[in-house]
Amino acid sequence: MKHGRVVIERVDSALLQGNAAGDPHVRRVPVYLPPSYDASPTRRYPVVYVLTGFTGRGRMLLNDNPWSPSLDDRMDAMIERGCDEMILVMPDCFTRFGGSQYLNSSATGRYQDHLVGELVPWIDGRYRTLASRDHRGVAGKSSGGYGALIMGLKHADTFGALACHSGDVCFDYCYRPDLPKFCAAIQRGGGLESWLKHFEAGVQKSSDDLHVLNMLAMAACYSPNPATRPFGLDLPIDVATGRWRDEVWQRWLEHDPLLLVERHYDALRSLRLLYLDCGTRDEWNLHLGARLFVERLEQFRVTHEYQEYDDGHMNVSYRYDTSLPKLARALAPPPGTT
Amino acid sequence: MKHGRVVIERVDSALLQGNAAGDPHVRRVPVYLPPSYDASPTRRYPVVYVLTGFTGRGRMLLNDNPWSPSLDDRMDAMIERGCDEMILVMPDCFTRFGGSQYLNSSATGRYQDHLVGELVPWIDGRYRTLASRDHRGVAGKSSGGYGALIMGLKHADTFGALACHSGDVCFDYCYRPDLPKFCAAIQRGGGLESWLKHFEAGVQKSSDDLHVLNMLAMAACYSPNPATRPFGLDLPIDVATGRWRDEVWQRWLEHDPLLLVERHYDALRSLRLLYLDCGTRDEWNLHLGARLFVERLEQFRVTHEYQEYDDGHMNVSYRYDTSLPKLARALAPPPGTT
Amino acid sequence: MKHGRVVIERVDSALLQGNAAGDPHVRRVPVYLPPSYDASPTRRYPVVYVLTGFTGRGRMLLNDNPWSPSLDDRMDAMIERGCDEMILVMPDCFTRFGGSQYLNSSATGRYQDHLVGELVPWIDGRYRTLASRDHRGVAGKSSGGYGALIMGLKHADTFGALACHSGDVCFDYCYRPDLPKFCAAIQRGGGLESWLKHFEAGVQKSSDDLHVLNMLAMAACYSPNPATRPFGLDLPIDVATGRWRDEVWQRWLEHDPLLLVERHYDALRSLRLLYLDCGTRDEWNLHLGARLFVERLEQFRVTHEYQEYDDGHMNVSYRYDTSLPKLARALAPPPGTT
Amino acid sequence: MKHGRVVIERVDSALLQGNAAGDPHVRRVPVYLPPSYDASPTRRYPVVYVLTGFTGRGRMLLNDNPWSPSLDDRMDAMIERGCDEMILVMPDCFTRFGGSQYLNSSATGRYQDHLVGELVPWIDGRYRTLASRDHRGVAGKSSGGYGALIMGLKHADTFGALACHSGDVCFDYCYRPDLPKFCAAIQRGGGLESWLKHFEAGVQKSSDDLHVLNMLAMAACYSPNPATRPFGLDLPIDVATGRWRDEVWQRWLEHDPLLLVERHYDALRSLRLLYLDCGTRDEWNLHLGARLFVERLEQFRVTHEYQEYDDGHMNVSYRYDTSLPKLARALAPPPGTT
Repeated sequence: MKHGRVVIERVDSALLQGNAAGDPHVRRVPVYLPPSYDASPTRRYPVVYVLTGFTGRGRMLLNDNPWSPSLDDRMDAMIERGCDEMILVMPDCFTRFGGSQYLNSSATGRYQDHLVGELVPWIDGRYRTLASRDHRGVAGKSSGGYGALIMGLKHADTFGALACHSGDVCFDYCYRPDLPKFCAAIQRGGGLESWLKHFEAGVQKSSDDLHVLNMLAMAACYSPNPATRPFGLDLPIDVATGRWRDEVWQRWLEHDPLLLVERHYDALRSLRLLYLDCGTRDEWNLHLGARLFVERLEQFRVTHEYQEYDDGHMNVSYRYDTSLPKLARALAPPPGTT
Repeated sequence: MKHGRVVIERVDSALLQGNAAGDPHVRRVPVYLPPSYDASPTRRYPVVYVLTGFTGRGRMLLNDNPWSPSLDDRMDAMIERGCDEMILVMPDCFTRFGGSQYLNSSATGRYQDHLVGELVPWIDGRYRTLASRDHRGVAGKSSGGYGALIMGLKHADTFGALACHSGDVCFDYCYRPDLPKFCAAIQRGGGLESWLKHFEAGVQKSSDDLHVLNMLAMAACYSPNPATRPFGLDLPIDVATGRWRDEVWQRWLEHDPLLLVERHYDALRSLRLLYLDCGTRDEWNLHLGARLFVERLEQFRVTHEYQEYDDGHMNVSYRYDTSLPKLARALAPPPGTT
Repeated sequence: MKHGRVVIERVDSALLQGNAAGDPHVRRVPVYLPPSYDASPTRRYPVVYVLTGFTGRGRMLLNDNPWSPSLDDRMDAMIERGCDEMILVMPDCFTRFGGSQYLNSSATGRYQDHLVGELVPWIDGRYRTLASRDHRGVAGKSSGGYGALIMGLKHADTFGALACHSGDVCFDYCYRPDLPKFCAAIQRGGGLESWLKHFEAGVQKSSDDLHVLNMLAMAACYSPNPATRPFGLDLPIDVATGRWRDEVWQRWLEHDPLLLVERHYDALRSLRLLYLDCGTRDEWNLHLGARLFVERLEQFRVTHEYQEYDDGHMNVSYRYDTSLPKLARALAPPPGTT
Repeated sequence: MKHGRVVIERVDSALLQGNAAGDPHVRRVPVYLPPSYDASPTRRYPVVYVLTGFTGRGRMLLNDNPWSPSLDDRMDAMIERGCDEMILVMPDCFTRFGGSQYLNSSATGRYQDHLVGELVPWIDGRYRTLASRDHRGVAGKSSGGYGALIMGLKHADTFGALACHSGDVCFDYCYRPDLPKFCAAIQRGGGLESWLKHFEAGVQKSSDDLHVLNMLAMAACYSPNPATRPFGLDLPIDVATGRWRDEVWQRWLEHDPLLLVERHYDALRSLRLLYLDCGTRDEWNLHLGARLFVERLEQFRVTHEYQEYDDGHMNVSYRYDTSLPKLARALAPPPGTT
């Protein structure tokens, strides 16, 4: 088998300097270059940005696992089986709260702008990409799938195709059920600041902890408020009394892909590929969200492809074996052009 | 130690005959008679009706467990420690769906009327009770705690005191989070009828199954609709598409004790005792509900007593050791009267 | 359906007075009398003693559960379906450690003698039993299944038929794997006495706790030693150092039914019925033990019946629907004799 | 912070060619070179070989995790805090069965020889190591901790210091409890070959699956037998009947570090550092094994250092922050020599 190679870049972001969450502005961004890249010094390639989910960052796509290949090994194998060669870029939009949803937020940083406005031109400037939206795609899983949808909804001029695996859709079903437990955990933890401090100090992070952190992260992304202490965010549930704060929840819903379709269906219609899939036992009910999203797409006559499969939410990176060849075809240059 | 004795009555209910869920109209109702009952043939006693939670019925309060006494043994021990003697009645309002919430419903049966209008006079006619609301109380845990609240809110003329342990309050926090999973389970199970048939046929009932059944039961209790098939109930989530049905959810909320306070605070104010407690790690977030309910009570200046303790939702029948002596005091006849 | 009735006797045991574990010598023993008992004042019935598992005692067989009938309801239904009428006796051989294995032990009490020498004649003296081994059987599940085997191996002159559900067999597979964790838990708990005190004081008993208690109980039953503190028992693992004590383990193995067959196969051959079954997903590997036991029975040409079914160890009381009618047939008097 | 760099070598092993398990003979071996390596072209460094646990291989030590640094990042930080610079080598001794225990076996391959006889000279030939046992150490966790002990016991002439985290010790406690469940799983899975085929085909590997695979791997490592089908190994439990095979178990015990001390204490005494630690809640009871091993070391007057900490078996790579600086000191060249 021919092997591509991975370069781990350190990208210094001007936009992320001095970000509110105190996260680094220099990020390690792996770039996968396909097997022919070095030997074909004039050839240009389509690019796919692969976005990680909550608690993830680009390097984790390279993590080795004996029964689930890293993304570079996976891509080598796909190419061996006939997939067109592509460059893959693995951004790092991680934050102290576990993620950024690839959005701009005063509580985390301008990750949406960083991705679209900084990283894409940086990559196009350093690698032989086919530097246009028709040959640039985005894919991701979970919060990365959400990020891919956001790119398609709001930046279809930058990304011409997307694949969304188990993406965060229908916030009423994927987040809202966890908010009462979040509130209870924060109450027991002595408040937001105390809870986070304790979480960060602990050597083990339990699954329950990560559910709690997830809610904090979503508040940082969807309902930031620079006027509040300690983290500059509003919560849809009052952690002191347990009261629901519907005005904050409405701000979250403004970011729900389910609701964004009607505002941005033109953008979605312009995509060369809009691929989605989800496991039918998703622990965050995202298959319900996916079906409702697909229903919305059909209502607005947006061409798309949707698949379901028998699995849960975790450890489904094997789905890239399905989506990346589709993206490769959708983003391929016309025959004979490169 | 002196022992009371238990009579297990078979009560034939006219109101439950031909009930929609096909449940029996003859019910076994244990009655605990305190140690002095037989030897004091003219003495009359206060009565407390003890309501079981979801999947429960009166006889289960007598279940033996090596480290958690049955209710009769527990009452013997309380009396030994100085608690006033009382009669305890353990109604059976179980249904095919796992419970009735002690409400009237076209999908289950007229359990509220059965309890207040049939069982109370039946007991008063056969046992030496102090047959007035001032000496009649109600207690329960979980859905039984909900039932006790409903009796206080709507039948304070029948029950003059209540104790609610971990009662279903704040439906947005205790039920709503489970509805997406309910929908997904029913979809995988091939629809409501197929799911229930499979559930009933299985020799083991998993915790996940019971979560699903719980939602079905609540729909049967809170949003019955005789016009629908197969079970004569509406669901707040469309099980075919996953769409939220807010108009059905609003019907559920009409039954939320949190919202009923403002309509019935006068009734609550009339109680001789309104006692509530909840564990601070309640898996259904009922401690959040309890706090919000207490906040509402304070807003309407309803006298009450509220306790919290460090435990979850299950296996907390030891809390009756706290509540029943309080009820005994509240329901006791004036000194020298019996 | 015709109903039998249950009398809950209080049996005062001379043998259990002053027992080492400090458990009561007066025990509540439920006796199920079949539907025809009261109306047929001269008729005599076969009897089956039903032995509960670890943490169980006779009354628990009457526990109500909406989807798993209590033993009396279950027996009513079997008789309705054509099973011969029998008396069922539900002994209480519970101890502070969670059980007695129905053995004599200086650390718990003389439960084997109590059952065979006290309870059987006590029952025969008060109820119209067919008071001979040909009409007296024993059945049980888990540790109760072990007890049934012990009765067949050592008291076949008292019990002429037995049914063993998921009984403790092959100690190397069902107990030995838990001993390292037992040792670790006791070390963390500050020693035996401190651990048990803490366990007894806790309002919740976790599954892990009960695994630990189980090992303590088995040591009390299989390797008692009056010379040791605090509980008069030897452990097969040194809880201070973690060292294996093979000489103690060999004492346990002396009680393993697997090894007792060769000494007592004549007794087993004399039984009118030797029925065993086990679930193929038994969490204590008892289906492996059952198969090895059956292999041993075949080696010694002991007639028996063995069934397997697809389930685990817990909540399998529905297996009595299979075993009790078999026992009823095996223990039935010759036609026309009663 | 100064950063070292990682080279991922592809090492072609002659010894592993044609290995029985069909695993590749070309392995990817990451090598960490400390910050000063490139700028100090004549300086030589101590080396530590870091051995991964079951299901692991060298690359996994580089896996990124937001709250647990990869080994290279961890080493950078240790050096920043004052630790002496070292080269780290991360061997790949993974097999189809999940691991090799760093032993020679006819069922897997000659991994012990590969490590000592091939990889060590290969590294010494390509990197500026201090190429003697006094400056070469070995460390590992779980099965990697076992491997480190084996190197100390049998190859102290190659490795002059070792650190063992939660290493496999006292096989009676860490493996034997899992063998009955292994047998039951293989029976349900239709035999060894069918089980492994099903395991390999599944997209998700459950924790139960990995427990089963672990036993298969240990048999491949400790009791290989080229004469048997399908995998050339003997099992200590007969998977057809469930019978214990003590003669096979004795072959496993020959590999237990607990028993190897008395044969190889001279080697252990020669080490510059023998460091061990274990969490006191180890799910495989390895803290019991560690204590028994330490007891044995004391009996044979082997100098060592042992630590315990409050944690379980998984996700404890933070322990390298303790062990690697100790190894660095133990392996350091005399001042002024490099």
